[in-house]
Amino acid sequence: MIRVAVDAMGGDFSYPPILQGCIDALKEKKDFSIILVGDEEALRKGIPSNLLDRISFVDTKDVFLMEENSTDVLKRKESSIYKAVELVRNKQADAVVSAGHSGATMSLATIRLGRVKGVDRPAIATLMPSVTGRILVLDVGANVDCESENLLQFAIMGEAYAKEVMGIKEPKIGLLSNGEEDCKGNKLTKESHKLLKNMKNFVGNIEGGHIFSGECDVVVCDGFTGNILLKTAEGTVGIFTKLLRSEISQSNFAKLGYILSKKAFKSLKRHLDYDQYGGAPLLGVNQCTIISHGKSNEIAIKNAIFQALKFAKSNINENIENEIKSMY
Amino acid sequence: MIRVAVDAMGGDFSYPPILQGCIDALKEKKDFSIILVGDEEALRKGIPSNLLDRISFVDTKDVFLMEENSTDVLKRKESSIYKAVELVRNKQADAVVSAGHSGATMSLATIRLGRVKGVDRPAIATLMPSVTGRILVLDVGANVDCESENLLQFAIMGEAYAKEVMGIKEPKIGLLSNGEEDCKGNKLTKESHKLLKNMKNFVGNIEGGHIFSGECDVVVCDGFTGNILLKTAEGTVGIFTKLLRSEISQSNFAKLGYILSKKAFKSLKRHLDYDQYGGAPLLGVNQCTIISHGKSNEIAIKNAIFQALKFAKSNINENIENEIKSMY
Repeated sequence: MIRVAVDAMGGDFSYPPILQGCIDALKEKKDFSIILVGDEEALRKGIPSNLLDRISFVDTKDVFLMEENSTDVLKRKESSIYKAVELVRNKQADAVVSAGHSGATMSLATIRLGRVKGVDRPAIATLMPSVTGRILVLDVGANVDCESENLLQFAIMGEAYAKEVMGIKEPKIGLLSNGEEDCKGNKLTKESHKLLKNMKNFVGNIEGGHIFSGECDVVVCDGFTGNILLKTAEGTVGIFTKLLRSEISQSNFAKLGYILSKKAFKSLKRHLDYDQYGGAPLLGVNQCTIISHGKSNEIAIKNAIFQALKFAKSNINENIENEIKSMY
Repeated sequence: MIRVAVDAMGGDFSYPPILQGCIDALKEKKDFSIILVGDEEALRKGIPSNLLDRISFVDTKDVFLMEENSTDVLKRKESSIYKAVELVRNKQADAVVSAGHSGATMSLATIRLGRVKGVDRPAIATLMPSVTGRILVLDVGANVDCESENLLQFAIMGEAYAKEVMGIKEPKIGLLSNGEEDCKGNKLTKESHKLLKNMKNFVGNIEGGHIFSGECDVVVCDGFTGNILLKTAEGTVGIFTKLLRSEISQSNFAKLGYILSKKAFKSLKRHLDYDQYGGAPLLGVNQCTIISHGKSNEIAIKNAIFQALKFAKSNINENIENEIKSMY
C-alpha cells in the first residue's frame, strides 16, 4: 500500500482545503494511506471516523511561510514541510505532496532525498491543456539559467514521466524556440537542438503558439522561459475572460446569451484549470515530490495525491537513470 | 507632407490587401502621400483616379520571398523591399512599410538606414492589448541573445516610442521576469534590473501573467523571450476560442447563447486582433520602418501607415539619442 506524506499546513489557506482534498482522495481510491504532517488536534477533528484507519499523523505546529527565504528551510527541522520530506527520506512514506513554499520544497527534496544518478539539476514539470489533451512542460521555474546538457536531461525526464505516469507510449518531444526551423533559436536552444536530435522521439523546435495544438507531448525549455510561457498563458486566459465579460455586460442580448452558454464556459474553465492537473512533479529527485499551487483547493489536492500514487507506482526514476546512462 | 514608401509586393497575399490598405489610408487621412514600390501596371489599375495625385510609383517586378535567407536581400537591389528602403535612405520618402520578409526588412533598415547614435542593436517593438489599453513589448524577435546594455537601450527606445507615438506622458517601464521581487530573474534580467533602476519610470520586474493587467506601458525583454511571450499569447487565444466553440457546439442552448453574444465576441476579437495595431516599429534605426505581419489584411496595412505617419512626425530618434547619451 502506497503511503503519501502530505504537508497539511503549507498553502495559502492553511489546512482546510488540504484536509478536504485528502478525505476526498481516500474516499475515491482505496489502495493507499496518508500521513498528515501538521497540527494533529485540529486535523483529527475534521476526519470521518471510517477513514481514520488509513490516516496517521505527525504532529507539528511549525509552518514554513511563503514569504520566508527558501534556503532557511534546511534549519527548520520542526516545520511541516521538513518533516513531510523526512518521512520519505526515512522510507516511512513513498511520496510527498505540498502546497507550501515551492522553492523550499524543491530545496529540501533535492538535498534531503538526493538527485537521481546522472541528473545534474531536477526540474519542475507542469501539465498544461492542449487541443488534444495535455502536454508536459519542463522546466517551469527551478532553473533560470541552463546549459544544453540540462535541457537534454529535462527531455529525458519528461519523456519518462509521459511514458510512465501519463501512459503515452511514444511521447513526442519538442524544444521551445522562436521558430520551427532547425536554425532558429538562441545560443542555448541551438546547442540543445544538437543534443536532442539524438533522441528517437524528438520532433524539433516548437513555437509558443503551437504548444497547445497537440504537436508535442513534452516541451522542454529553461526555467525562466518556462515560467514566462506558463504565466503568459494564464494571464491571457484571464484577460480574455475579463474582456469578454465586459463586452457581454454591455448588452442584454449578450447577457442572455452568456446565461445560455454558461455550461459551456464552465466546462471550458474546467479544462483550463490547474485544479484538474493537481500539481507539478519535481523530476530528477529520488522518490516522488509533488509541488501544488499555494492556492490549491480540495480538487487540486486530491488530484495531486492521485498524481503521487501513479508516480510512486511507476519505474520513472530507474527509467531516467538508465536513459541518461545510455546517452553518454 | 509626409511621404510613405510601401513595399507593395511583400506579404503572403501579394499586392491586393496592401493596395487596398493604402487606398483606405489615403481616403481617411489627407496629409500624406504614398510611393508604391512594385508592379506599376498591376497596381495602377486598382487605384481610384481621384487618389492618383497622392500616389507615385517605383516600378519593379522582383519580390524577395519569405523562404529566402534574409542576408541575401543585400544583393537583391531590384526587389521591392530593397527599393522601398532606398527611397528612405535617399530622402525621397520619410518612412517605409513592409509586410514582406521581416528579417530582410530589418537587415536592410539597419544596414542601409543605419542605427541611431548610441544604439547597439535595433529592436522590433509590438503593441499588445491590455485591460486598460495597449502595451508596447520589445524586443520580439530581432535579438535572440542579449546583454543587459541591450535591454537598457530597449527600455529607452520603448519609452521614447510610448511618449512620442503613443502619447503617454510618463510611460511605466517593466522588465519581464519570472517573479516580481527584485531578486527574481535569470542572469540577464538580474543584471538588466541594476541598469534599469536608474530610469525614472522603471517600475520593476513584471511577470508574464501581469503583462495584460495595465501595470506597465512598456515591457522589455530579449528577443527570444519576447517571441515566446507574443506567440504564447496568440496561441492561448486560439485554443481558448477553439475549445469554447467545441463546448458551445454540444448544446442547442449554448449555440443560441453564442448567437446572442456574437457582437460581444466580435468586439473582443477586434480588441485582440493584431490588425488593429498595424505593424511593429523597428526602433533604433534612422528614419521610420514599420514591419507588418505577412498575413496583414487591408486594415492592418492602413493602421501600419498611420503608425508610420505618427512616427515620422515625431522626434523619437532625437529623443532616443539624447536619452542614451544622458545614461552614459
